[in-house]
Amino acid sequence: MKPRTVKIGMVGYGTVGTGVARILVENADEITARTGLKLELACVVDKDMETPREFQIPRVLLTDKLETLLNNPDIEVGLELVGGTTIAKDIQIQMLKAGKHVVTANKALLAEHGPHLYQAALKAGRCIGFEASCCGGIPIVSILRSGLAANRISGLYGIFNGTCNYILTNMAGSGIPFAEALKEAQSRGFAETDPTLDISGTDTAHKLAILGGLAYHCRIDMDDIYIEGIENIDLADIRSALEMGYVLKLLAIGEKTADGRISLRVHPSFISQHTPLARVDGPFNAVSVFGNAVGNTMYYGRGAGMMATASAVVADIIDIATGSNPRLFETMPMATETRHPAQFKPIEDIDSRFYLRIMAKDEAGVFARYGQTLGKHRISIRGAIQHEWTGPDNTVPVVITTHPTPQKNMTAALTELEQLNVIHGKPVCIRIVDIPEDKEQ
Amino acid sequence: MKPRTVKIGMVGYGTVGTGVARILVENADEITARTGLKLELACVVDKDMETPREFQIPRVLLTDKLETLLNNPDIEVGLELVGGTTIAKDIQIQMLKAGKHVVTANKALLAEHGPHLYQAALKAGRCIGFEASCCGGIPIVSILRSGLAANRISGLYGIFNGTCNYILTNMAGSGIPFAEALKEAQSRGFAETDPTLDISGTDTAHKLAILGGLAYHCRIDMDDIYIEGIENIDLADIRSALEMGYVLKLLAIGEKTADGRISLRVHPSFISQHTPLARVDGPFNAVSVFGNAVGNTMYYGRGAGMMATASAVVADIIDIATGSNPRLFETMPMATETRHPAQFKPIEDIDSRFYLRIMAKDEAGVFARYGQTLGKHRISIRGAIQHEWTGPDNTVPVVITTHPTPQKNMTAALTELEQLNVIHGKPVCIRIVDIPEDKEQ
Repeated sequence: MKPRTVKIGMVGYGTVGTGVARILVENADEITARTGLKLELACVVDKDMETPREFQIPRVLLTDKLETLLNNPDIEVGLELVGGTTIAKDIQIQMLKAGKHVVTANKALLAEHGPHLYQAALKAGRCIGFEASCCGGIPIVSILRSGLAANRISGLYGIFNGTCNYILTNMAGSGIPFAEALKEAQSRGFAETDPTLDISGTDTAHKLAILGGLAYHCRIDMDDIYIEGIENIDLADIRSALEMGYVLKLLAIGEKTADGRISLRVHPSFISQHTPLARVDGPFNAVSVFGNAVGNTMYYGRGAGMMATASAVVADIIDIATGSNPRLFETMPMATETRHPAQFKPIEDIDSRFYLRIMAKDEAGVFARYGQTLGKHRISIRGAIQHEWTGPDNTVPVVITTHPTPQKNMTAALTELEQLNVIHGKPVCIRIVDIPEDKEQ
Repeated sequence: MKPRTVKIGMVGYGTVGTGVARILVENADEITARTGLKLELACVVDKDMETPREFQIPRVLLTDKLETLLNNPDIEVGLELVGGTTIAKDIQIQMLKAGKHVVTANKALLAEHGPHLYQAALKAGRCIGFEASCCGGIPIVSILRSGLAANRISGLYGIFNGTCNYILTNMAGSGIPFAEALKEAQSRGFAETDPTLDISGTDTAHKLAILGGLAYHCRIDMDDIYIEGIENIDLADIRSALEMGYVLKLLAIGEKTADGRISLRVHPSFISQHTPLARVDGPFNAVSVFGNAVGNTMYYGRGAGMMATASAVVADIIDIATGSNPRLFETMPMATETRHPAQFKPIEDIDSRFYLRIMAKDEAGVFARYGQTLGKHRISIRGAIQHEWTGPDNTVPVVITTHPTPQKNMTAALTELEQLNVIHGKPVCIRIVDIPEDKEQ
């Protein structure tokens, strides 16, 4: 059978675009053999037509005019690989209006304007493929949308940001402070010059908005997600917690609680070193999903990088070309008004275990003082370590882990602890997340 | 929007069938909210209409006549959940001819007669969904067919059989011999009364035939796969290897070698305890896949059981109802004649590392004798342990690990070793599999 040619227009000849071009050329035979499709890059739009890239596209395909792509009726699929939430949005809308299916890796745009774009796509009778927007090469979008579609999802726990995971792994492994680990990540290309989006947890939250929306088939706005980053993580806490069996990860959590409400949060989390997610190191991503039929399943792979992300972009092109993705997009209600409204559970209503580090004055009666404060707020201590060590101002670090405690009790206790004159500075408080276990039946 | 009703006919009201019925009833609202589809069980065919099941289907839906299903024009999807390779094949063919799409969990049938059935489906303009045939709830069929479709796959390493993994985990963890671990697995429902299909490696090979066919888009017959089971595994070897840092797994391996040939094998394999697959315990399955763009990705979950398998069956029903699966089936060449022929690499051409245990006579000059035999066949020793211990006939167990060695050299050396009068009995020889690492760039 003669392969069917599918013409592709690409906007944005950056890192991911370069990777896509490379796959389309280098894996062309493989893709044709597997799918019966011949994927052909017909046009590449970028302002910068001069700078040499790691993989060079024939000069004749390059243009700085989006119209070249829009006006080519043979182009079926348009790739928006520009990034950001302004021009990129216009580009997607224009491509949809011109009758192209859209494929994108733009998590920020979809997290913030997804419903608007999905609506535009439906109206144009086209689809948006966004496998590449979350967790690079792990086909997690398709897994949540199709593979686990028969399940009531109860929990989703993910390491979605390779930069943060690289930094935290390196802090723990090499015993270096945050600032140094960040610098190292930047020098090795695992962190941007401006790392804010990553280390603040915002990038992780973008992905949680998309994947949570699929898991709980509801519309999620960024405001529905509680976000804390890793900027203030102290090496001392990584070390103390490790002694108690915990590993620090920036975790994205989406849980459906017994009352039917959905809790969405991104924050530094101590997880048991025996949990599979605790072993996900360096720039890798992983997602652990709990479904009422399937139990626990886990997915692991490179969360970013030129080729892993490009792998997902090309997978979407193929799914569009086979007609599978458009059918899914049309049937599964991605657009705002057709998705049921969800009740979200604010962070103050969440019960959690906590890790607390207090720099306590090394004198008699101190233990009772902060013990009373915790007790008053009904915070029950599960574990504690106080090493024989003296810090500044004659203080000792006291590390405490708690039983499950309502966040509001902890928030109130922290305010009081801060004001105790037997405590030096602000207590450090990091949540401990007990990822459920899927035990043998 | 009013949900579209999709009528389903089920043949085989056994374990998986019961799970499917339960999901269709208990998760009905969830599925409709997610997909806009109302999945309705319209008829259940089984010879046994009397025995009570764990989840009871309304009596009125039960019939012992396949014709009731075939002649109902409203039924779009037919589930073959009978198992086996004889009646099941007829049932699938009849359902396809009656214009039903087919969903099945029947790995044995697809491994042995897949091409014939795919061809029948194409001819009927219908598709066969077989997500449930491999690794239970892990959507690995879809991942290999779509999610990683842009990649040249170089390797596929899987733990595909929960029964074997449960037995091996238990032998290592509880220090019990094979026979006892098998009995325990049977009493807990993790092994069949006749466990042959599982422990012989055949079930694992069935899944490798299906998944290898997707990864390398070629037709794989059972004869193309080298198979060894776990029946003869001795606890002593699990213990000795653990001391050297290896964990024993029944591994399915599909590798594309540098010469373009495909190596397919199922055998007990020692893998490094630091490999993620080494931590897959009990009845769980996992698959590690290496693609030239995506790098290493890994997938983990329950490989069998009523609800996990049913989760995959219902996922297929949904993908068929959205129209996505039929498009994929039509485009991706699953049928024999359209798939390119592959060159398979026989086991004798494979290089491997080996674990050897020899019961050597405890006397002077023995070390040199078997050392000479190994050297003569160009087998280079990487590690060795000889504990100060005496076994039957004044022998000591000598454990040796080798550098990569052609299988044929090892086969020849084993024959010679057996004949040495300084060695008691047959040497034990188990392959060591070095799963590639996807290192930080």
